[in-house]
Amino acid sequence: MSLSRLLPGLKIALVQMLVGPDKAKNVAAAVKEIHKAKQRGAQLVALPECFNSPKENMNAEEVPFGETCRALSAAAAEAGVCVVGGTLPERQGGALYSTSTVWDRDGTLLARHRKVHLYDIDIPKKLKHKESEMLSAGDQITTFVFNGVKIGLGICFDMCFSEMAELMAQDGCSLLIFPGDFNVTAGRRYWELIGRIRALDHQLWVALVSPARDTSADYQSWGHSMLVDPWGNIKAQLDENVGTILEDIDLNVVEEVRRQMPIKPQRRTDLYNTVRKMKMSS
Amino acid sequence: MSLSRLLPGLKIALVQMLVGPDKAKNVAAAVKEIHKAKQRGAQLVALPECFNSPKENMNAEEVPFGETCRALSAAAAEAGVCVVGGTLPERQGGALYSTSTVWDRDGTLLARHRKVHLYDIDIPKKLKHKESEMLSAGDQITTFVFNGVKIGLGICFDMCFSEMAELMAQDGCSLLIFPGDFNVTAGRRYWELIGRIRALDHQLWVALVSPARDTSADYQSWGHSMLVDPWGNIKAQLDENVGTILEDIDLNVVEEVRRQMPIKPQRRTDLYNTVRKMKMSS
Repeated sequence: MSLSRLLPGLKIALVQMLVGPDKAKNVAAAVKEIHKAKQRGAQLVALPECFNSPKENMNAEEVPFGETCRALSAAAAEAGVCVVGGTLPERQGGALYSTSTVWDRDGTLLARHRKVHLYDIDIPKKLKHKESEMLSAGDQITTFVFNGVKIGLGICFDMCFSEMAELMAQDGCSLLIFPGDFNVTAGRRYWELIGRIRALDHQLWVALVSPARDTSADYQSWGHSMLVDPWGNIKAQLDENVGTILEDIDLNVVEEVRRQMPIKPQRRTDLYNTVRKMKMSS
Repeated sequence: MSLSRLLPGLKIALVQMLVGPDKAKNVAAAVKEIHKAKQRGAQLVALPECFNSPKENMNAEEVPFGETCRALSAAAAEAGVCVVGGTLPERQGGALYSTSTVWDRDGTLLARHRKVHLYDIDIPKKLKHKESEMLSAGDQITTFVFNGVKIGLGICFDMCFSEMAELMAQDGCSLLIFPGDFNVTAGRRYWELIGRIRALDHQLWVALVSPARDTSADYQSWGHSMLVDPWGNIKAQLDENVGTILEDIDLNVVEEVRRQMPIKPQRRTDLYNTVRKMKMSS
């Protein structure tokens, strides 16, 4: 490949917003942020996990017919941007999913990802938290193309699984987006390290998008939304407060890194490989 | 598994030694370090990459019959410790390998790993470095058991490949050891991050063992040998100078991490998996 070949780029906005108990207000705030980001030049706007309701509030709706979906679709079309709609609780039949919807600049549904890795922990007499008691797990790995850029989409704990990211990289992704909402303890320990891990190991851009911290809420979000470049370096990072990251995704950097630190080109697929057992949703 | 089950442990020494141009002196210095570490209570002593000769000096020998092998075997038996013999240039027929030898406490050869991922980079008019012009690549992933602990062994660039570490984890490893010799630029960028990546992603202990920096040499080693715990936290790290890390590998921590941050237990092997295409050398 010629060094001088110019690859497409993408200006993205990562919106770290406060999420309150009122779903309609949350959705309206998200729509406002989408338009603000567009005015600043964003082509893709990503919202955080649980952006339309806090964790304890399961305002489930159907995809793509619910009120949140209709609002995101309309905002994407009006602003003419791609919207990665954080997550919302999705109801289908008797099942609930944690779902991220992606809306093209004409308002059509471009992709839907249901969280694949539910966070189940059960330490007798110490700690029990089982997402699987409330949620069903997705069974697809999700990628989509926007503006010539292939993008992988995961939700929160999904970011901890290297094989999922490897399959996204094999599928041609140059950017992974993870809406996520770690608490302060897990955030301090893992958030930054995991973002950098995924970027360096797979040599692509990684965006993590958290809600801002509401110090009056029961659940204290870590915040610290960030963008990591394919070297594993943090290109931009917020603190715990409301804010938006606006950055260019330069695909030439992906090519440059893979030449200069040839991890991806020199995998020994004669000795090992990561295989997928399901259809890719893309 | 009962929380109160006590798992075996292992006291390991990571020896960050200076390597000079004189092979016999280097080997003698390594033997001395093995005995010193034994006196401090070490059960396993790991030497750095290229411990018997600097990179430019290809003092190749046969494994296990060469003079370095004989010296390591004798030192392991005399001290009664396991020796992970960094790397040496191995000759077999017309081929050269970068090879790590492991010696049991009775002096027998417990494992041999040939570097699997050679570092080849070729950016026209800018930079060319092709290990594959001089070395042949190994074709096996290597694990061994010492003192009840299963250990994975890789060399330098091998540490950058998540699938190799995943296969070691699947094989039951609780500790990965990588003799490595990054230069200062790559070291500053990647050394610490990659050590932490492998530990956190696969939830096991990771040891990186570098030569000390010889400021008068052509090749400036990064040093910074370190031990990372299964949380991804640095348990001990040296600077660029001569030194030895002496630490306990506590296997109970491996179990604890996998319960509290259930990455390894909750991989979705119904959707994906890492597969190996060769026989495991163990």
